[in-house]
Amino acid sequence: MSFDMSDELQGWERRDKPPTLYRRFSFERYAQTRAFLDALSVLCDEFKRHPQNISFGTTYVNVTLEPADDKVFASQDETFAARISALAEQGK
Amino acid sequence: MSFDMSDELQGWERRDKPPTLYRRFSFERYAQTRAFLDALSVLCDEFKRHPQNISFGTTYVNVTLEPADDKVFASQDETFAARISALAEQGK
Repeated sequence: MSFDMSDELQGWERRDKPPTLYRRFSFERYAQTRAFLDALSVLCDEFKRHPQNISFGTTYVNVTLEPADDKVFASQDETFAARISALAEQGK
Repeated sequence: MSFDMSDELQGWERRDKPPTLYRRFSFERYAQTRAFLDALSVLCDEFKRHPQNISFGTTYVNVTLEPADDKVFASQDETFAARISALAEQGK
């Protein structure tokens, strides 16, 4: 099963061993960072899944996703990543 | 100015270059992790300060604190760290 990086994954960096998708989101103020994190929490509930890791400070959030099936990225992962990107855009 | 590690900082690991305090909190379920993160967010508002970094996954939260004055840890940092530890205890 192959997985082509699409426009939806613009800004996301693909890493291997183990396979992950990584993206850093930067914000001007903590309030924006906080709003993004809160919206991300709601999105995770909606998708019933969580990023492998979220690392944040005052004005940045680094998100690392693993494949939903733990092995290979598929369209559902792409959708999840794209929705996360959209949340960051909303907050700017 | 010196800084003695007290009982309040039990569980926290002191790191240098730059000076930070680090502690990993583990939880059994995501709901507990989420509750801790939410309580931590409220605490940060109360103290008007934020950890240098918070890194979390489904069942863990790693917290890294820097000194409030950016140079040397003092009693206010110790209080902040102890309050964070207390939040984790409440959630268990």
